[in-house]
Amino acid sequence: MSTTGQRVNVLQTWIRTHGVDALLLTHLPDIRWAVGFTGSHAYLLVTSARAWLLTDGRYTTQAEQEVQGAEVQIVSGDVFAHIKEAGYLAELTHGCFQAEHLTVSAYRRLTEALEHMVWEGVEGLTHTWRGRKAPDELARLRRAQELTDRVFQELLGWIRPGYTEKEVAAEIVYRLLCYGAERMSFEPLVAAGSRSALPHARPSTRVLREGEPLLLDFGCVYEGYASDMTRMVYLGKAPEAYREHYRCVLQAQEAAIASAQADIPVKEVDMQAREHLKTCGLDAYFTHSLGHGVGLEIHEWPRVSYQSEDKLIEGAVITVEPGIYLPGKYGIRIEDMLHITATGSENLTSSTKELIELT
Amino acid sequence: MSTTGQRVNVLQTWIRTHGVDALLLTHLPDIRWAVGFTGSHAYLLVTSARAWLLTDGRYTTQAEQEVQGAEVQIVSGDVFAHIKEAGYLAELTHGCFQAEHLTVSAYRRLTEALEHMVWEGVEGLTHTWRGRKAPDELARLRRAQELTDRVFQELLGWIRPGYTEKEVAAEIVYRLLCYGAERMSFEPLVAAGSRSALPHARPSTRVLREGEPLLLDFGCVYEGYASDMTRMVYLGKAPEAYREHYRCVLQAQEAAIASAQADIPVKEVDMQAREHLKTCGLDAYFTHSLGHGVGLEIHEWPRVSYQSEDKLIEGAVITVEPGIYLPGKYGIRIEDMLHITATGSENLTSSTKELIELT
Repeated sequence: MSTTGQRVNVLQTWIRTHGVDALLLTHLPDIRWAVGFTGSHAYLLVTSARAWLLTDGRYTTQAEQEVQGAEVQIVSGDVFAHIKEAGYLAELTHGCFQAEHLTVSAYRRLTEALEHMVWEGVEGLTHTWRGRKAPDELARLRRAQELTDRVFQELLGWIRPGYTEKEVAAEIVYRLLCYGAERMSFEPLVAAGSRSALPHARPSTRVLREGEPLLLDFGCVYEGYASDMTRMVYLGKAPEAYREHYRCVLQAQEAAIASAQADIPVKEVDMQAREHLKTCGLDAYFTHSLGHGVGLEIHEWPRVSYQSEDKLIEGAVITVEPGIYLPGKYGIRIEDMLHITATGSENLTSSTKELIELT
Repeated sequence: MSTTGQRVNVLQTWIRTHGVDALLLTHLPDIRWAVGFTGSHAYLLVTSARAWLLTDGRYTTQAEQEVQGAEVQIVSGDVFAHIKEAGYLAELTHGCFQAEHLTVSAYRRLTEALEHMVWEGVEGLTHTWRGRKAPDELARLRRAQELTDRVFQELLGWIRPGYTEKEVAAEIVYRLLCYGAERMSFEPLVAAGSRSALPHARPSTRVLREGEPLLLDFGCVYEGYASDMTRMVYLGKAPEAYREHYRCVLQAQEAAIASAQADIPVKEVDMQAREHLKTCGLDAYFTHSLGHGVGLEIHEWPRVSYQSEDKLIEGAVITVEPGIYLPGKYGIRIEDMLHITATGSENLTSSTKELIELT
């Protein structure tokens, strides 16, 4: 755990521990985590003694205001040519770059401009650093989810048959923005009736009808940090078959949540949900991963899936969102955000998971 | 110019012309352009005789509905391992990939899984193909801009001192979504008073006040295609100095627009605006590029800047958006979308550029 300003020290310790001379960060969420810069174009270059945030003229004022722990350089033209000309790495020999966040084109420009050095690609560099949320990060995640819960609660008094999926989505966005969200975590998913059986249905002009379920999956970004939740709403009185399916998904989700704590392999948490759905004969309809890490990115480390080799760590924030999708009928998904602790987890989502029937 | 379904033929002709065996597309807007797939995860593999759209289980139904000109394959696990195992490229020796749209990590997995082939990186592959908009693409761009113009017109009757920048932004988003926009082209920029002097100010809780200018820069996506426009609104009666600055920026924009036509180097168009601002003594305050291409991406080819080596082509759609930024005072930017023709351009933006004073 660390705070902005101290994080360049984390990078410099890594440089020394790994016996290299320089590290080039090219992934904007990593750069924001490290030095606080929120613009859309930047590179962060770190050596054992110095650090430079390189951006362009649109961000002169903003970078000076935001950046902590690095010197700001405004660059017009090729950034690697600038690094060479400025001589930041003149006496150095071994640089590392983010292999998952540098294109082959940029790699070529980097290694041509700075050909006096050996360049080594690293992967997953910031996973556990960013995974372990600091208090200020948690506060923002909490606030993002509070806004999301608030809007969900309000929607329950507003939703009724006759609106289109798109109108419901617009209402969600409007309320979140009015309450101070910076933007949406992703475009809200609003899927009525059989469209809820498509895990990634975009809101359409389909009209909500009495006697069908509605899936709502949305979240917002507050000071850079994202929330994410899914709830089902039944428009009218739910039939027994639906109630039974809902109960199974909820129990699967609760089983997964109960198993989540630091040091547990993520795949065991996923397996809890999958095993419970199996006892209901519904596991074949759970066609995606259990969830994902969340923070500065809506999908970030750890990978929350039965294929994941990651272990949960204290301070991580993940979603737990099992779902079943019955083609042509409906889908049911329930999603909360969990803050992982040493002995369990804290649920950041406060909206009820009781079956909701709007009658 | 080509339509979805024919575009795989364009790629196959390129393969044959360049004497290679296969082409791997990894850039989602290029893939959407080529075969119509709108999901968030896909690869398009093309050989001289066949084409495969490779995606994951979330998109089974959607891919079957959307994809034209390629066979759909649902892949779980590593896509390059799948390509090898399926033997799509078994007898082939020379593959090309998009160097600007493949990370070093993915490049390593590609070349390890398919090491029997030579892999060559290409850049700018789809620039002119996507740059020359087809009638169906133009229709969507027009519609996106019509929605944007409509919302701007409505806002003029709604905006008044007392609202915050964030509230104005929320209103823009809400109206665009209600009128059928898929999403925003980018988060609306709403900047009041001296905040308009920051070219990339995000909407804040700053309250709009009588006697100051307001900058509005927004657009929406309609069926995949983006719009973009900027207008200034003065809250009250504008002083003469502001009117004069506004007139200079407008004349600069009109000079640039008048010069735009097919076969003209983009930098000459940029220069028209810059030269006019020079005659007003304001060129030092025009600190960014003149504009950008727009289509499936909000920023796409051609590069519209004084540093650009591109020429305009018939059918291209670009923005023209000169601006001046007087630190601590205000910024003024005016932006339209142009459709480039053989003899000039068609302005897709219909909102007035007369000085607007809301009194």
